[in-house]
Amino acid sequence: MIRGLTRAGLGTIESYEQLISGAAQYGFKSVDLDPVDFIRQYGQEKATQLLKSNNVIIGSFDLEVDWRSSEERFREGLKALVESAEAAASLGCYKCCTYILPSTDEEAAPFMAVATRRLRLCADILGAYGIRLGLEFVGSWHLRTHWANPFLWKMEDTLDWIETIGARNVGLLVDSYHWHTNGLAVDDLLKLKPEHIVHVHINDAKDGPIEKLLDGDRLYPGEGVIDLHGFLKGLQIAGYAGVVAQEVLTPSTSASVEELLVRSKAGFDKAFANL
Amino acid sequence: MIRGLTRAGLGTIESYEQLISGAAQYGFKSVDLDPVDFIRQYGQEKATQLLKSNNVIIGSFDLEVDWRSSEERFREGLKALVESAEAAASLGCYKCCTYILPSTDEEAAPFMAVATRRLRLCADILGAYGIRLGLEFVGSWHLRTHWANPFLWKMEDTLDWIETIGARNVGLLVDSYHWHTNGLAVDDLLKLKPEHIVHVHINDAKDGPIEKLLDGDRLYPGEGVIDLHGFLKGLQIAGYAGVVAQEVLTPSTSASVEELLVRSKAGFDKAFANL
Amino acid sequence: MIRGLTRAGLGTIESYEQLISGAAQYGFKSVDLDPVDFIRQYGQEKATQLLKSNNVIIGSFDLEVDWRSSEERFREGLKALVESAEAAASLGCYKCCTYILPSTDEEAAPFMAVATRRLRLCADILGAYGIRLGLEFVGSWHLRTHWANPFLWKMEDTLDWIETIGARNVGLLVDSYHWHTNGLAVDDLLKLKPEHIVHVHINDAKDGPIEKLLDGDRLYPGEGVIDLHGFLKGLQIAGYAGVVAQEVLTPSTSASVEELLVRSKAGFDKAFANL
Amino acid sequence: MIRGLTRAGLGTIESYEQLISGAAQYGFKSVDLDPVDFIRQYGQEKATQLLKSNNVIIGSFDLEVDWRSSEERFREGLKALVESAEAAASLGCYKCCTYILPSTDEEAAPFMAVATRRLRLCADILGAYGIRLGLEFVGSWHLRTHWANPFLWKMEDTLDWIETIGARNVGLLVDSYHWHTNGLAVDDLLKLKPEHIVHVHINDAKDGPIEKLLDGDRLYPGEGVIDLHGFLKGLQIAGYAGVVAQEVLTPSTSASVEELLVRSKAGFDKAFANL
Repeated sequence: MIRGLTRAGLGTIESYEQLISGAAQYGFKSVDLDPVDFIRQYGQEKATQLLKSNNVIIGSFDLEVDWRSSEERFREGLKALVESAEAAASLGCYKCCTYILPSTDEEAAPFMAVATRRLRLCADILGAYGIRLGLEFVGSWHLRTHWANPFLWKMEDTLDWIETIGARNVGLLVDSYHWHTNGLAVDDLLKLKPEHIVHVHINDAKDGPIEKLLDGDRLYPGEGVIDLHGFLKGLQIAGYAGVVAQEVLTPSTSASVEELLVRSKAGFDKAFANL
Repeated sequence: MIRGLTRAGLGTIESYEQLISGAAQYGFKSVDLDPVDFIRQYGQEKATQLLKSNNVIIGSFDLEVDWRSSEERFREGLKALVESAEAAASLGCYKCCTYILPSTDEEAAPFMAVATRRLRLCADILGAYGIRLGLEFVGSWHLRTHWANPFLWKMEDTLDWIETIGARNVGLLVDSYHWHTNGLAVDDLLKLKPEHIVHVHINDAKDGPIEKLLDGDRLYPGEGVIDLHGFLKGLQIAGYAGVVAQEVLTPSTSASVEELLVRSKAGFDKAFANL
Repeated sequence: MIRGLTRAGLGTIESYEQLISGAAQYGFKSVDLDPVDFIRQYGQEKATQLLKSNNVIIGSFDLEVDWRSSEERFREGLKALVESAEAAASLGCYKCCTYILPSTDEEAAPFMAVATRRLRLCADILGAYGIRLGLEFVGSWHLRTHWANPFLWKMEDTLDWIETIGARNVGLLVDSYHWHTNGLAVDDLLKLKPEHIVHVHINDAKDGPIEKLLDGDRLYPGEGVIDLHGFLKGLQIAGYAGVVAQEVLTPSTSASVEELLVRSKAGFDKAFANL
Repeated sequence: MIRGLTRAGLGTIESYEQLISGAAQYGFKSVDLDPVDFIRQYGQEKATQLLKSNNVIIGSFDLEVDWRSSEERFREGLKALVESAEAAASLGCYKCCTYILPSTDEEAAPFMAVATRRLRLCADILGAYGIRLGLEFVGSWHLRTHWANPFLWKMEDTLDWIETIGARNVGLLVDSYHWHTNGLAVDDLLKLKPEHIVHVHINDAKDGPIEKLLDGDRLYPGEGVIDLHGFLKGLQIAGYAGVVAQEVLTPSTSASVEELLVRSKAGFDKAFANL
């Protein structure tokens, strides 16, 4: 598995250059970023060069299409989706991810119907570029009732949904926080097949009942109670060999990027030990 | 459009022969029945002959697959589905229908995901025989809260779902009672395209607020308040030329089949006048 | 059915304005054009106004995506496809068409596999905008052997392919020339269902064996041997009520646009008489 | 990877019992057989017991549906397909395979269109039982021209076709003979992903130009020129951990089952050494 970073948990990153070189300096081999914006700022050649010279790849990019509201909004994102796919592929990135909010103000069943169709189209467009789509189930309990109607938060239900979406290039984004808040065990990861896992997020949780954990109050890997070593081991046995990207959603901090990179590295060293 | 009957509203029909000849006698050109059971009882040749000699076709047959509970139960119905499709096609019937309960004890969104996949497979199996699948939206208000979670009851949501199911041979079963209880108008039918309408049910409703109408307390066509002429006119303009089958779900009656056929004919004469 | 024009057969049209006002002047209610280029030249508002003031709609636009060569070329067209779909929908046009060359230098079976996947994606993208995709089978005999391997030219095979592509919004573009060169009769059109017909082209053929007719040597409607009245009658009975667009592929002419519009109108008057 | 047998290459096997116990005796852990026939002969309980007591699983069963000729023939196989799927799943077998003849008397492109639709439906039915479908590309040169029109024989084209079929549960059956006759190398196997490989056949080829090798004239593993160790190593690196089943299509032999099992074991010992 490949150690990776997202911006979440690194404080105020000033530039893609800082992100990439910082990652490289602390032993990370991957960063998640917006490929279109990256190329816009640096140009294709310099962007490619920046990755190459730092021996860093792009792990995944976000699905920016709004598949959660109206058809109009959804359609408006399609052109940008094609652009993102082109840009990502041009930089060697073949993973795109989106998250599933566990509740919704829409009526649940009709929304599931339209969401299925929209994500299928996104997957098919991405598929034309060889890009896979990862769906992140979100376990945080407070979000299950944050909007009017329950939607979906279980790993098993997400796998079932993926079967319904039906496209060959769709799988899970498995995030350690949502694995934890869903009360899942290492054994649950062993049921996954390689094609089920598109991308992985890693971060840690405070002690206490999982019902109380807040989505935006996560800890750095190794600083909480999640069995991250077991988590990674399970994914490895299930056949995953891709990027594991840190994503620490947390209240803002006064710590420097440098300090946060040090903490991130320490957490990864611990979680990745003896894998 | 073709006048048709189902058993619902005809009292105690003793045999397929009675159903078919009774239909013919009162000017109906179609009956809905179970093609496998029909052939089992009469044999292929006699069954065919019975339809032909009475100049009656089979309008539609019910999707017997249980797509609403477990995967096991769903799978158990697949062999029978193939048999039904074979039998129906052998008798010249190319329509199969199922209804959508407006609420469910399952979690709505995950259930929508699996239901989509199951109905897609049913549609694809039926499609191999040239058979279309009609989905009946059910408007009755008391059923919207009969089970724990709201599912789907609007015509527009059903059309949206059909787009998601995606198979070319799926459309609506439009029932006048559910059109009425959804508060729809003739104009709403004009938005439909020919391929949207697989089958049509006709029956009437008691006077009073639509919120109070019970699903099992329907009236014979022409004996209630639904604008059935407008209903049929709208479907006709939308390009529908198929079977309109009476389906009067009602508490049991002491009236004879004969009497009920007379009432049915009277209702159709009224609704079909000047179409 | 709605009388329509394409540029083919009108000589040197100088502008969209000339095309649209010329169409209107001679009783045509539709023109086929490139919606992106049209908006680029006139702006959204003026383009809309030009159509509206002439009481003319856009019948269909061409699928510009190259689905016949490499994956790279295919992908390059996707962004433009989204733009075209947006532009077309903004002008009220919901039909897009492409033609199928009856032979190919690719290996036939593998090419069919990739073409199916590519057209499915195009259809799904168009579908997000409510746009249907019409596939034009091309009957001209000399083109069946023009490239190394036979591909597909029969209406029935195209319908079969459409079932395989599977998207609900795909149908035929029926061109009178290809109907004629395939040796089809009016009865063959009666087998079509409304959803099978996305768009119609009309033009005429010289006398003589259909094996000898050249694709680029067509005649104006009414000036050749095709039973265009029967052709239109068949489509009408099959439930088609959309645009019938003239497309006269022919060696260049010295005749003025005016003269050619007069001839076009005369041909349509004849073919549309008593429909 | 799991050592497996098919009947091909074992001479005259008298019973399933002989097949299964013979396999077990010579260190094979899997046999390919017809689950419906097996249960018909032994009953569900005894069949299950026979596998269990010998510690043998069923590797794969053949797709008996005729997807290569008419729609009628295709449909006739669907009921049996459901039965096979049920029977296989009840015995713990979740793989079904079919082979692709490299040429066809049908017109290549239209046949590809219908074959795609048919295999999609088979895959979807199998998918309801959790069963994957493996497509075997057939490289033998003489078969590429045996029927009138070339169809498909390359691994890459088969993968492309699988993308078009689109179902998540479809992959390759990789047979060492067809890998060899396609002139493929170990590197070509490394491009495969775990989900691409459903099943594996192993057998060997005579020396000489691959253009001359006959499909029915294969050798036992280790008795010919194919680098079977490299073949297996490549599949292993690509993530395959399933059954490798011997399938020696060869002119009939006078050798005893016993002798042939000994030769089979010897070949596997050689090919599997140091994996």
